[in-house]
Amino acid sequence: MVNRITGRLPQGAAVMLGPGDDAALVAAPDGRVVVSTDLLLEGRHFRRDWSSPYDVGRKAAAQNLADVAAMGATPTALVIGLGIPADLPVKWLDELTDGFRDECAVVGASVAGGDVTRCDLVVLGVTALGDLGGRAAVRRDGARPGHVVAVAGRLGHAAAGWALLEAGADTRGALEAGVEPRGALEEAVAAHRRPCPPYLEGPRAAELGASAMLDVSDGLLQDLGHVARASGVRIELDPAAFTVGEPVAAAAGILGTDPLEWVLTGGEDHALAAAFPAGVRLPASWQVVGRVVEGDGVLVYGREMGRGGWDHFR
Amino acid sequence: MVNRITGRLPQGAAVMLGPGDDAALVAAPDGRVVVSTDLLLEGRHFRRDWSSPYDVGRKAAAQNLADVAAMGATPTALVIGLGIPADLPVKWLDELTDGFRDECAVVGASVAGGDVTRCDLVVLGVTALGDLGGRAAVRRDGARPGHVVAVAGRLGHAAAGWALLEAGADTRGALEAGVEPRGALEEAVAAHRRPCPPYLEGPRAAELGASAMLDVSDGLLQDLGHVARASGVRIELDPAAFTVGEPVAAAAGILGTDPLEWVLTGGEDHALAAAFPAGVRLPASWQVVGRVVEGDGVLVYGREMGRGGWDHFR
Repeated sequence: MVNRITGRLPQGAAVMLGPGDDAALVAAPDGRVVVSTDLLLEGRHFRRDWSSPYDVGRKAAAQNLADVAAMGATPTALVIGLGIPADLPVKWLDELTDGFRDECAVVGASVAGGDVTRCDLVVLGVTALGDLGGRAAVRRDGARPGHVVAVAGRLGHAAAGWALLEAGADTRGALEAGVEPRGALEEAVAAHRRPCPPYLEGPRAAELGASAMLDVSDGLLQDLGHVARASGVRIELDPAAFTVGEPVAAAAGILGTDPLEWVLTGGEDHALAAAFPAGVRLPASWQVVGRVVEGDGVLVYGREMGRGGWDHFR
Repeated sequence: MVNRITGRLPQGAAVMLGPGDDAALVAAPDGRVVVSTDLLLEGRHFRRDWSSPYDVGRKAAAQNLADVAAMGATPTALVIGLGIPADLPVKWLDELTDGFRDECAVVGASVAGGDVTRCDLVVLGVTALGDLGGRAAVRRDGARPGHVVAVAGRLGHAAAGWALLEAGADTRGALEAGVEPRGALEEAVAAHRRPCPPYLEGPRAAELGASAMLDVSDGLLQDLGHVARASGVRIELDPAAFTVGEPVAAAAGILGTDPLEWVLTGGEDHALAAAFPAGVRLPASWQVVGRVVEGDGVLVYGREMGRGGWDHFR
């Protein structure tokens, strides 16, 4: 089983000793190593009937690689603790492995090791390592009044896709009936199944002098709340500054939802959000969406998000 | 919840950025990092009715720290993906955390980060990092004919303790009735609940020139089989060379078992087994138990262990 998995996993340049020993050995040329871990459970973080094994692998890898990028680091390797049911088809495991492999390949990382055990449900314990290349780690606590807040990557796409899947048969009918823009809806569903984090923007933001950064996993408002709290500042977002992606707009049209809700509260796209000192010339991949001021909390339309969620907030 | 956990976790010198950000930052002064991961599941790897949460934490940490030591490295940090049921008592979680903390402290490591999620059963995804201090990693494939095979740490203790627990009420009766040597039996049960890997012997063996090393997690015969296969050699063990620990002998007396079975096939004590070139002066903590010769497999009494297990083998 283990040999079957490792046989599908080519090793990248940073892996000095891959699977098969008590531990792997990974290059850490910087003299420090960035490390992040997540536990993903079938039924809670993914569903085998909603996502292919390949997409589950890509998404599980992406989530952890994005955490490493959000520190300003370049991901180097993953190690994976894998729990699998005895009756899991071997093909499912092969495709899961391929998903991990291919998402790692996007950033030049690889799966350096792991552990396989029997479990009644599929469990993925994923740990990502990364190298800062001599840069300071970009934490959450460096945002200062006067800094701008910018995002790179997609917002609301995965949430729109999840809402389409959850709405179920009706939406599927609309999709199957060829309701336009069909391509945009499918793109939203695909975004739920497989995020495309802007990995390279992490080290790039660090080089540009980002004062705080994180990856948007729980929704922009909630995640920027972490930055505001850690930095002791208020973040004011400008709703008009957000570009609503076509898939988000299309799904909102079908489901009668405010697309900005997904943009501001939808997680799982693993966009990067960062604060930069005023005057930093940001590349086009970073969109300024707000600013840092004295105070606390995250404000939209001049009001703080209420505890009752979006409806209550509006 | 996360704050409650991290509040119990002091950070060691190697942790440059601890819990609370997208990722942790750990020193890797060697320019390389040793990394090992394991997934531990309630019901499969531990039972809440057989082990205290504190012991579960210590054992889960020990298992991974021992993997790092078995490469010849000094453990620096753990990261933990934690799945917990909604109704898990907070006290259970506190004690689990303390177990992780205290086992890390044995080697000067600490818990640098983690992830908490809801799960129907307790799931522990544990990843350990370590530093080689400029030494070459001790792999499994360097044993050569003429080398000696030695072990450091306990063998068969955890297996004896597990057998006592599994035997259940009768043994408990014997224990409660004060059957002697009671202390030795309790020590066996304690060894099942909490291994004491000889962590420092890992880097020490590497410095002494160990040609191959691993930690004994599945039983000495099986694990040395990995060394024999990876190195392309035969390992001949001398049964008379093993010291049977008092707890193992006492449990074997109660249960009418051959204690050498536990010594040679019992896992979970996380002893270290290594090959050394002939002529290396080994410290008393390492006991020579066999030798490396041309051929394949692992032989005891001049015979290879059969697939039918110990009984079949004898």
